[in-house]
This record gives sequence, structure tokens and C-alpha cells, in this order.
Amino acid sequence: MSQSRPAIQDFYPEDFSHCFGCGRLNEHGYRIRSYEDGEAVVLHFEPEPYHLSVPGFTYGGLIASLIDCHSMATAAAATYRAERREPGTEPPLRFVTASLKVDYLKPTPIGPLDITARAREVGARKVRVAVELSAGGEVTARGDVLAVRLPDTMRGA
Amino acid sequence: MSQSRPAIQDFYPEDFSHCFGCGRLNEHGYRIRSYEDGEAVVLHFEPEPYHLSVPGFTYGGLIASLIDCHSMATAAAATYRAERREPGTEPPLRFVTASLKVDYLKPTPIGPLDITARAREVGARKVRVAVELSAGGEVTARGDVLAVRLPDTMRGA
Repeated sequence: MSQSRPAIQDFYPEDFSHCFGCGRLNEHGYRIRSYEDGEAVVLHFEPEPYHLSVPGFTYGGLIASLIDCHSMATAAAATYRAERREPGTEPPLRFVTASLKVDYLKPTPIGPLDITARAREVGARKVRVAVELSAGGEVTARGDVLAVRLPDTMRGA
Repeated sequence: MSQSRPAIQDFYPEDFSHCFGCGRLNEHGYRIRSYEDGEAVVLHFEPEPYHLSVPGFTYGGLIASLIDCHSMATAAAATYRAERREPGTEPPLRFVTASLKVDYLKPTPIGPLDITARAREVGARKVRVAVELSAGGEVTARGDVLAVRLPDTMRGA
């Protein structure tokens, strides 16, 4: 799934673009790209061959990482929508993870992953996100993530 | 904290030693080393400078990954104890993650991390593990992890 349109992460301000999971400026990281698709936000990711748990299966920590960062993008997109603003307009929306829950329903074969997230509750400061991760057309993990607006203690560090 | 004694991961069988988080044979991974310390299991980890969320703070996906793999080691150690067996004796104990919950209590400054885990419920097939992650002497994240014995579907893949 190649996409030529901008990803949600393309609208992150520069100080939010160094994240190991989703920062476009972190050359060591995963550089995930999340796209709105109707009410959902989708991510396609191809693990490296060494992103293993046991041979043949995807590392659970990678799954948790993808669900985490993709949920922050989903929270930002939902909040822009709720505020009837275009993505990237000022002031920027920056979310961090308050709580991350991942249920590993079955082993995830190593290979292309598709992740679909939906904002379930969009509050003034918090967004709850529900996530499904699929491999080979089968849902193998579910996420439940609570995103909160960036606290002042993390600004300008 | 340098340790010359074997880590719990040193007793993992070879087919369990390729994990990106804790596999001693995965040259791209974190290669964490978990040690029993009384009733607890401890891990010291030094993130790379690029393991960032925002500049100055540790990537939450790394925190989730460390909590995850360290909990599997804790589950194995607790089960060896419960079965009054020495670590590494046959048959090997292999655990995978059924559920991972991480609460990010406050931002985690980038720098050395100390993680302490305790097995709370040790069943025949499942172990529940409670985890605290500290940076600079302050607890910044908590984990609640459910480990299950390796299902047959992941054996010998």
C-alpha cells in the first residue's frame, strides 16, 4: 500500500518528529506513517527479518510500539476533526501515551502488518483509541490506548 | 550494575534466543539480561541516544518492550522456583505474552533505566507479573503482564 498523500506524522511539529517509533527525523527508528481512511486511521508496516520473538513470528515489543505511536496519530487526527481544523494548523496537537494495553490474541507471523485504529472517546485532554493488528488477513493483536495532550513538563525539553 | 553471574536469558533454549528484546543471538536487538534478586527480578538497561519520544525522554515503545521481555524472564524464574527446579533444567520453560499493560505515570528522562518485576500469581500455565520502571530513582512507569506457557502453535516454527 503505497501512499503519495501526506501522513499524519508529516504534520507533527519538528520537536515531535524525533520519536523512535514515528519521528520522520529519527533515522534509526521505525518512521511509521499513519493515514486517515474514513473514520479509521490505517498503518501498513513491514518488519525487518530480525524483528522476531521466536523464529517465524513478529516481536511483541514491536507490535506494542506500532500500536502506541499509531494511536497517538489517531488521537491527533480525531482531535483535529473534533475541533474542525485542518491537520497541521496552529497550535499543534501533541499527544503522549498515558496507558497502553495490548492483548496478543494469537502468534503474529513475521511479515507485512496492517493496523487499523479508531478514536472511541475524544475529550478535551484525552482520547481513547481502539486498535486492531492483522497479519495475513487475520487479527492477531488488539490495543486499547489512552492518549493525553502533552503535559507542560515535556515541552521544550 | 555489572553482573558476572548468568542471566535468566542465558538459560533460554536456542530457539527462544532470537527474540529482538531478549535473545542473546539477535545481534540487532536489545539483548536484555534479567537477574533474580531475592523475590524480585531486576534489569538494568541503557537506552541508545536515539531511543527518544521527544528530545530528553525515553521512547515509550522501548519501555513497553523492556517490561514485556523482562516479565517473560520473571515468569520463567518464578516457575522454576515453584517447581523446585534449577534454571536451565529440562524440559525448558518458555513463556509468551498474552497481555501487556503499561501505565506511563510521568515522562521518563533518557538515561539508565532500572526495572524490577515480581511474579504475583504463578499458575500451571499462566504467570501474572507486576513491574516498576525507574529512571533517576523515580518510578515513571508500571507494567502488568500476563505470561502464558508457549502454545504448541509456536513450537518448532
